[in-house]
Amino acid sequence: MIVADFATIPMGTGTSASDYVLAVHELLRGSRIKFAAGPMSTAIEAESFEELFAVIEKANNKLADMGVQRIITSVHIDYRRDKELSIESKIGIYKDE
Amino acid sequence: MIVADFATIPMGTGTSASDYVLAVHELLRGSRIKFAAGPMSTAIEAESFEELFAVIEKANNKLADMGVQRIITSVHIDYRRDKELSIESKIGIYKDE
Amino acid sequence: MIVADFATIPMGTGTSASDYVLAVHELLRGSRIKFAAGPMSTAIEAESFEELFAVIEKANNKLADMGVQRIITSVHIDYRRDKELSIESKIGIYKDE
Amino acid sequence: MIVADFATIPMGTGTSASDYVLAVHELLRGSRIKFAAGPMSTAIEAESFEELFAVIEKANNKLADMGVQRIITSVHIDYRRDKELSIESKIGIYKDE
Repeated sequence: MIVADFATIPMGTGTSASDYVLAVHELLRGSRIKFAAGPMSTAIEAESFEELFAVIEKANNKLADMGVQRIITSVHIDYRRDKELSIESKIGIYKDE
Repeated sequence: MIVADFATIPMGTGTSASDYVLAVHELLRGSRIKFAAGPMSTAIEAESFEELFAVIEKANNKLADMGVQRIITSVHIDYRRDKELSIESKIGIYKDE
Repeated sequence: MIVADFATIPMGTGTSASDYVLAVHELLRGSRIKFAAGPMSTAIEAESFEELFAVIEKANNKLADMGVQRIITSVHIDYRRDKELSIESKIGIYKDE
Repeated sequence: MIVADFATIPMGTGTSASDYVLAVHELLRGSRIKFAAGPMSTAIEAESFEELFAVIEKANNKLADMGVQRIITSVHIDYRRDKELSIESKIGIYKDE
């Protein structure tokens, strides 16, 4: 299992990104991907690199369909082989603080 | 106002980062910084670049004090001049979805 | 065309990453991907998201094969639709300074 | 010693970032910071976190002075305590390949 987060930054449009963020969330809800929206990025839980990358490509295509001519995407991937990973488990470590 | 998120990745220690994440959160609670912990990074709200950078330096020093010999930090900063920014407002855009 | 850069950070090993960086470069030289190694990350030029993602997955698998139990990967993708992009053109803008 | 790289992404302007990249390089040349420009980001070598952060704040202020209303900055910091770090040494590991 992989946990990752990503942000797609539109260039050449206005200073607001909210329409694009909402469109990406809509796309995520339409898939079966588990995700958690944060203030700077959206975390997702993926079974495989393929699943993760499909989401990122779809997010880019979505923004392109909305007319964005240049998109900068930041991705951070946590790939752990010695232990199961999930958004829940990663957040759980500080839930009991 | 600046909203940012950051993650400090310890190298040369074990595969678990939870003790370090908890230590950074403790440090944040001890300051007056508003923060939101996420699965991949911690978002913070800062009045200025100075305030943001002080947090990141303290987080690095904390891990160094705990014995970490090499620390990779990722930071993403959203500096917006045309509008007030906050963790709340950034999350608010999809709260009504 | 897509230009991206990425870094794979091993956790749970020593503080040195050079063996892993060299292994990833070897892998890149074995493919037909154009790449440029930098001090903090490796830039690549890809025809498609698929090509880019295949590289990142292979790099993760390579480190896993070398025994790394946890890998944090940072990726930044520049996807531009209004103009051809290349490592050369992106570096070219400051070559004449 | 710290090695880091950073990129400042303008939002609300056109799709081209080259004027902004050139302005940041000019600013770096005017300081005594050692830097290496790459296709996706600019690497710098800093004596301290303060020196690194001063550069990033100045880069943001420069873009703001040029009229950019929203700036997303990505930073990756390599802070190593067990060994001297430099752009040269980090690139040197693959110079002999």
